[in-house]
Amino acid sequence: MNLITFEHNERLEKQINFIIEIDKVKNIVRKSLLFDGSRLENVAEHSWTISIMVILLQEYANFKVDIEKVLFMLLIHDIVEVDTGDTFLYSDERKNAHFNEERAAERIFGMLEPDQKKMFIDIWKEYEEGETNEAKFALVCDRLQPLIQNYVNKGCTWRKHDVTYEQVMKENIRIREGSEEIWNFVKYILQESVDKGYLAKNQPPKEKKE
Amino acid sequence: MNLITFEHNERLEKQINFIIEIDKVKNIVRKSLLFDGSRLENVAEHSWTISIMVILLQEYANFKVDIEKVLFMLLIHDIVEVDTGDTFLYSDERKNAHFNEERAAERIFGMLEPDQKKMFIDIWKEYEEGETNEAKFALVCDRLQPLIQNYVNKGCTWRKHDVTYEQVMKENIRIREGSEEIWNFVKYILQESVDKGYLAKNQPPKEKKE
Repeated sequence: MNLITFEHNERLEKQINFIIEIDKVKNIVRKSLLFDGSRLENVAEHSWTISIMVILLQEYANFKVDIEKVLFMLLIHDIVEVDTGDTFLYSDERKNAHFNEERAAERIFGMLEPDQKKMFIDIWKEYEEGETNEAKFALVCDRLQPLIQNYVNKGCTWRKHDVTYEQVMKENIRIREGSEEIWNFVKYILQESVDKGYLAKNQPPKEKKE
Repeated sequence: MNLITFEHNERLEKQINFIIEIDKVKNIVRKSLLFDGSRLENVAEHSWTISIMVILLQEYANFKVDIEKVLFMLLIHDIVEVDTGDTFLYSDERKNAHFNEERAAERIFGMLEPDQKKMFIDIWKEYEEGETNEAKFALVCDRLQPLIQNYVNKGCTWRKHDVTYEQVMKENIRIREGSEEIWNFVKYILQESVDKGYLAKNQPPKEKKE
């Protein structure tokens, strides 16, 4: 439902109604706690933090990136969750999420005029596909934040969902493609997390007795 | 207190602890409700929405602007509220806020290495001073959002704090410097708000009887 009508400028009317629609991500909570551990974080808050990370940590990208584009990418990357909800990185549902997300992108970005719809869908897809330098560095920031949240909160989300060190390494190894330096930091906090008991290692398979 | 230590890269250690520190804005609530009226919005959520507005509404700026710079400006413009809290646009405390905000900027951005501290303080001051094209267009988005929030929520914040049409016009007229088109839209929703009883006009002074 469109809450705003503005006959003088229908394009602007659409833009404002889009802004109102995407506000719903403020009620979509993620699996990770705020750094102070007080409550789960919502999608808008997450997007804000990782956007600041882009500005702050750009010096560690493995290559030169267009910061405006990375910011655009991360500010809008989770808007589809208005329709799909948040899917946990380490869950099975994650594997089937893409079809629903495409439909959500069509609907939500389709509230805009065709030129802006295309602009938003293109940048959303570019992040999803993960091939460009901008998408690779965006992923560094998107993935780094929940790792630090978990480390600071003594592995709360990992422990709650039985996530192991091996899973975290496997699902986050792509950080390395965007930033070697940040990957070194990630390896450090994951090892610390194991040492402090925040994150479990898989049991090594027992040797078969002959 | 620094939650993260990373001896291998002290600069990165500072950057990560800064990210953790500024997370506190997620507990600083503003005076305006989310568009759905369910609760007050916090500073991180506000900063996210107005950053998307920058991308979406840039075509209405009165002049060409550097979008990366406007995004940087708006993403960080309210971080000082970690120390000062939110000050209401229409309140007296607003007039005295600047000194406290400068001290807050010194402390919080001072968590970074000198080059990044300077970069953040410079962009924060540029917005505060409001002289450049980027600062003028940033203000358009920063001010537009709560006006729409109030309109959609039937003037909730205005009525609660006895804010009048004349005050809203006076405090927001600077939108016009950044965007004539957005200013036209603002005038429209403010007039609608008066017509629908969401926003009170000052009583005109009564004519003196001779």
